[in-house]
Amino acid sequence: MKQSELFTKTRREAPADEVAKNAQLLVRAGYIHKEMAGVYDYLPLGLRVIEKIRAIIREEMNAIGGEEVSLSALQDPEIWKATDRWSDEKVDVWFKTAFKNGGEVGLGLTHEEPLTRLMTDHISSYRDLPRYVYQFQDKFRNETRAKSGIMRTREFTMKDLYSFSKDKAEHDAFYEKAKRAYENIFARVGIGDKTYLTYASGGSFSPYSHEFQTVCSTGEDAIYVDDAKKLAVNKEVYGDEKVYEEMGIKKENLKEEKAIEVGNIFTLGTKFSEALGLSYKDAEGKTTPVFMGSYGIGLGRLMGTIVEVFADDKGLVWPESVAPLKYHIVSLGKEGDEISQLADALYNDLKNAGVEVLYDDRDMSAGQKFADSDLLGIPKRIVVGKDAVNTGKFEIVDRASGEVNKAERAELIS
Amino acid sequence: MKQSELFTKTRREAPADEVAKNAQLLVRAGYIHKEMAGVYDYLPLGLRVIEKIRAIIREEMNAIGGEEVSLSALQDPEIWKATDRWSDEKVDVWFKTAFKNGGEVGLGLTHEEPLTRLMTDHISSYRDLPRYVYQFQDKFRNETRAKSGIMRTREFTMKDLYSFSKDKAEHDAFYEKAKRAYENIFARVGIGDKTYLTYASGGSFSPYSHEFQTVCSTGEDAIYVDDAKKLAVNKEVYGDEKVYEEMGIKKENLKEEKAIEVGNIFTLGTKFSEALGLSYKDAEGKTTPVFMGSYGIGLGRLMGTIVEVFADDKGLVWPESVAPLKYHIVSLGKEGDEISQLADALYNDLKNAGVEVLYDDRDMSAGQKFADSDLLGIPKRIVVGKDAVNTGKFEIVDRASGEVNKAERAELIS
Repeated sequence: MKQSELFTKTRREAPADEVAKNAQLLVRAGYIHKEMAGVYDYLPLGLRVIEKIRAIIREEMNAIGGEEVSLSALQDPEIWKATDRWSDEKVDVWFKTAFKNGGEVGLGLTHEEPLTRLMTDHISSYRDLPRYVYQFQDKFRNETRAKSGIMRTREFTMKDLYSFSKDKAEHDAFYEKAKRAYENIFARVGIGDKTYLTYASGGSFSPYSHEFQTVCSTGEDAIYVDDAKKLAVNKEVYGDEKVYEEMGIKKENLKEEKAIEVGNIFTLGTKFSEALGLSYKDAEGKTTPVFMGSYGIGLGRLMGTIVEVFADDKGLVWPESVAPLKYHIVSLGKEGDEISQLADALYNDLKNAGVEVLYDDRDMSAGQKFADSDLLGIPKRIVVGKDAVNTGKFEIVDRASGEVNKAERAELIS
Repeated sequence: MKQSELFTKTRREAPADEVAKNAQLLVRAGYIHKEMAGVYDYLPLGLRVIEKIRAIIREEMNAIGGEEVSLSALQDPEIWKATDRWSDEKVDVWFKTAFKNGGEVGLGLTHEEPLTRLMTDHISSYRDLPRYVYQFQDKFRNETRAKSGIMRTREFTMKDLYSFSKDKAEHDAFYEKAKRAYENIFARVGIGDKTYLTYASGGSFSPYSHEFQTVCSTGEDAIYVDDAKKLAVNKEVYGDEKVYEEMGIKKENLKEEKAIEVGNIFTLGTKFSEALGLSYKDAEGKTTPVFMGSYGIGLGRLMGTIVEVFADDKGLVWPESVAPLKYHIVSLGKEGDEISQLADALYNDLKNAGVEVLYDDRDMSAGQKFADSDLLGIPKRIVVGKDAVNTGKFEIVDRASGEVNKAERAELIS
């Protein structure tokens, strides 16, 4: 991708109304655009990051047997009344609207209700279970707080998986698999070592649920971590000796940290299946409610967390796995000169070799180009200047560490 | 994909409330689920078709220089007031809702307004033009008519591209390119020979706009086609001799046909850029409004049209390019027998060779399996029965034509 062909421009100053580091940098770098408080657009580079994250999550969901669907945002009030989650007193983040030809309708804030009803068409026998169904779908939440950039927004894409099992034992086995899949996801996007499986309060069907919390100085949550065990508890269960015992941790080893919740998994039990009539006949012909779980990750939340964790005072810093492109060629030449010709050739070679590369071919000062390159945060910068023309070696700068290496064209391509 | 691992089930009868053929068949085959009138979910096989269509459109949009973004559904009333499209008297398909902490908000029915405002951050000079920006994004339209299945819905994914040019000449050149890209798309999804570039009424900046209309007996539109020229006019401009002259067609050669609108392209001119302040400085430093166009395709509408055009009385019929999978292995064996072992081996071979294959490994009668296979509409059915065990040759049935061929394992894999 040539930078001259990218419509987005960087800007020096963050918008005055953005307080979160992630939004300040992502707006400055042209990755996102703010429509209103808590409502953002994704521009070409930002969308590329989202797509990288989506592909990693999709692979991990497919690997544990997930089947992908896409449910509507518009929600039928009837099913939400059945679970007592329609009234604004019970759920305070609804966006509600109405059909022209009559009838209220909601914008989905999550999808337990519609998916549970849908599954009644497809599950009737124990032979139909277990099933794991997921989607990447836009949720709407009427948040009054919207100051965390893309980490807490009024509209966002979420990966939500729902599990449908015969009983608690079958559910528990999948729940453990889902934990491992979540650990893989956070490791693959680069925040594995900072992300803790965190015990949180449960519901009627489980003593606790689990959050995945990423330690970060700008986090809004407080968690208490046992570093040696790589486990944590959140505020809800902090101080609960029973939980510590179950986890095999000791209070004196816990250290308070600020953190960002990047995922959560929850045992739903039969709450939704009983309310909406999702049951199956077991081998003896007995009708039994399906045992459910839910497993969520917000894509914007995860992208924002990666920004908060890695960005420095010069700009964004992307782990290679989610970077919009892997290499950033910065040409110090003028159109048509030897340097530009060398940069053009390198760009074409890398592109033809299938390498994801952004090429700063713009007519602009070296200082501006380096500042933009730092701001954009692409992992490896390849500088093409006089030195490269003279020696045939390119300077490769690692964005995260600042480490400088030299490489010849052939090495870069392989 | 093993059919035993697919959660969706087929059903014999269409839901009583579905009148459109596309919805009847897609619901029966388990491709979609109806939430409410005009609101559908996409299930695994249906989502695969949508993703095939999306990939084709994306390739064609990238090939003409499109840059992909993703804008929010939630819409700021201010920009729609600026173009006089906020009031329900002017636009009668708004869904409107409100923020908890005050202020009305709309659900996007199209995206001229937000994208035009967004581009004011990135376009200031003639050097920044032209730009072509597109997205696949969910639109919301408060339709009172919703009886056409997935062809006219209240929530749907649309590919919408917007062009930003210096002047009409630059716009016109791109507009012609976009026409060709649209023709490529409709050809690639299998309806090229039935789809006509159709002249429709224009606006202040162009004598006409263009629709792409697919001839189909269940279509809601009437168009008048000149078969030899592969052109048509819609009702708005039918009888307008000036248009015929421009098109080089004669009234006496026109034939009325029923058709479905699968795409449209429109010259917007400076209507939106003037209202929202999107201008650039030309080479002489003169401030000039940007000249715009818009180019839309609804993904569900296109998928529904493909169903309407090709489906027969036995079920769906997918062109290979958009089929959820290419082959459907139907095993007539029982678990563990010779036939099943052969079918298993063939499935694994095809899967390992990267072929997209659905494998009916269920314990069910041959009659039921063939009926399901017809309903699902996968292009090539491979029958694995006694004959295959004895001869080493598989029967391959073409879903569209019913033609039967025989092939050995090695042929199938290559």
